[in-house]
Amino acid sequence: MSDSNTIYIAPEEMLKRFTAILLNQNIDEDRANAMAKIFTDNSIDGIYTHGVNRFPVFVQYIKDGHVNPNATPSLIHKFGGLEQWDGNGGPGTLNAIHATESAMELAGQHGIGCVALANTNHWIRGGTYGWHAAKAGFVFIGITNTIGVMPAWGAIDSRLGNNPFVMALPYKDEAIVLDMAMSQYSFGAMELSVLRNEKLSVPGGFNKNGEITSDPSEILESRRALPIGYWKGAGMSLLLDILSAVLSGGFATHQITKSRIETNISQLFIAIDISKLGNHSVIAKTVNDILDNYHQSIVSDPSKRITYPGERVLNSRRKNQVNGIPVLKPVWHKIMEL
Amino acid sequence: MSDSNTIYIAPEEMLKRFTAILLNQNIDEDRANAMAKIFTDNSIDGIYTHGVNRFPVFVQYIKDGHVNPNATPSLIHKFGGLEQWDGNGGPGTLNAIHATESAMELAGQHGIGCVALANTNHWIRGGTYGWHAAKAGFVFIGITNTIGVMPAWGAIDSRLGNNPFVMALPYKDEAIVLDMAMSQYSFGAMELSVLRNEKLSVPGGFNKNGEITSDPSEILESRRALPIGYWKGAGMSLLLDILSAVLSGGFATHQITKSRIETNISQLFIAIDISKLGNHSVIAKTVNDILDNYHQSIVSDPSKRITYPGERVLNSRRKNQVNGIPVLKPVWHKIMEL
Repeated sequence: MSDSNTIYIAPEEMLKRFTAILLNQNIDEDRANAMAKIFTDNSIDGIYTHGVNRFPVFVQYIKDGHVNPNATPSLIHKFGGLEQWDGNGGPGTLNAIHATESAMELAGQHGIGCVALANTNHWIRGGTYGWHAAKAGFVFIGITNTIGVMPAWGAIDSRLGNNPFVMALPYKDEAIVLDMAMSQYSFGAMELSVLRNEKLSVPGGFNKNGEITSDPSEILESRRALPIGYWKGAGMSLLLDILSAVLSGGFATHQITKSRIETNISQLFIAIDISKLGNHSVIAKTVNDILDNYHQSIVSDPSKRITYPGERVLNSRRKNQVNGIPVLKPVWHKIMEL
Repeated sequence: MSDSNTIYIAPEEMLKRFTAILLNQNIDEDRANAMAKIFTDNSIDGIYTHGVNRFPVFVQYIKDGHVNPNATPSLIHKFGGLEQWDGNGGPGTLNAIHATESAMELAGQHGIGCVALANTNHWIRGGTYGWHAAKAGFVFIGITNTIGVMPAWGAIDSRLGNNPFVMALPYKDEAIVLDMAMSQYSFGAMELSVLRNEKLSVPGGFNKNGEITSDPSEILESRRALPIGYWKGAGMSLLLDILSAVLSGGFATHQITKSRIETNISQLFIAIDISKLGNHSVIAKTVNDILDNYHQSIVSDPSKRITYPGERVLNSRRKNQVNGIPVLKPVWHKIMEL
């Protein structure tokens, strides 16, 4: 992202532009601001696929009526530390922030809290909610289902979602955040590899003959993406979908897939309040000791460093805040036309 | 497991034999019975590596003083639906059953419950606790750390555990249970493939030159097992270890690895009481519909069936209850000598 096809946009300029576009869609000002900030922050963090590159798709979803930008979630059922909410078709980002904060509040009262959310939309980047909860002092687990993009193990038709799974906890003033989909690569990442004329670094799916391949164009042809860990990630994807649908009372992947548009999805948000633990005063040291040991790993390539989930995000964040956010010119031109 | 080297042991005979061996180790009768039952049930379920094949190792751990078979867990700290227990070096199976039941009790009170357990021992088979909670009407998530057996992504020395992860929920009168380690294969499974002179069905690790391979003997030589999903499973393993150690206040993988014996491990048990959900009356249908759709997958090999996690366990269970549990003769001879 440093060739002549890239421009650098200051974070405040991106935020202002995104906000203006959303205000143009008759969205309440505070909500337009909050949504624009999430897309900008994801871009600052270097997650461009879930930031600036995704923003035009999100605006189109609003224009097409798949996302109701002013809808807010409503509480359907509550028992102790457990709540079920209806997202009412509102924006996935704001619904997910609301659910995360509700889970944090429940955790403050019960030590652990779980919010299940039905009828919501794409949360864009799961890590957003991991960072949000962890920086406030909570352990966080987040689960979403998606439209079907991946076959069951041994199958050829895509009935499983890639169902991102997030785990996060506080670390120093920042966080450790794992944010991973159940497919080895997204179709977006494979399309990018084809454009760059590159093979995948590890096998990413099947070709039309049912053979495992690292050639992204073959996988785009077969539409058979590989689950992480083969049968393991396929099984985990199924369980993540079942838990999302069962606990929220919302749609499962097969129902989302049937509607052909990725909307009315189901999500889970679990928070644990670290301050309520008996050992809360020594947790920072526990995590430090683990990461110190982890970083002492003997690397196979001396030019590379072992990083923990979320560590590289911090580097992107520092760099992009100083230099501006690198954006492909055609992407920014598209945004300027929105 | 059906050649001349296999004998079939009736479940009640196995249970009786295991109980007698444990009673011989001066273990209280109810505890000896409960431990013997878990090893027998795992064998009935077809998980021989975590049943009959593992039993002699467990007895040796008791003899060597790594497991204190009569020790019971004690409550260290409690806040709402969150409890921290010390396993006091007791048997991993009984400590884990106790923790599972405590999490279920908390879930009954708070909707969701979380028990973190420090200073415990190998829980043998994570699925045991998934089945236990799910058959009683709970969603279950279980996490354990282990001794280091897998390198960080990009590293050559094994500082990560394979840290099994369990997700389960009720289904009909049985359960859906995902029980998976973060390594693609266990070293035990790879040793078995070498004995059988078989390659692995998918890549399982690195050879000494740092190349990914499906040759189990090369991986046993390098000791570099492959995480599921490459960098993804390595990251998830790290997070599972951190959460286990942070929430329990117990040892992390680097500390367990330092002691060279897999003891003093840390675990998490999360339960959600399904009967407390607003949609509890329609959950059975929700799960049925998901699995119906899943089973309609178009298979790549028409002789094979798509199964959900836990489905094949049911088949083994039915078969072994009728025909007896298949046991390799040398394994049973060893047990008869204990």
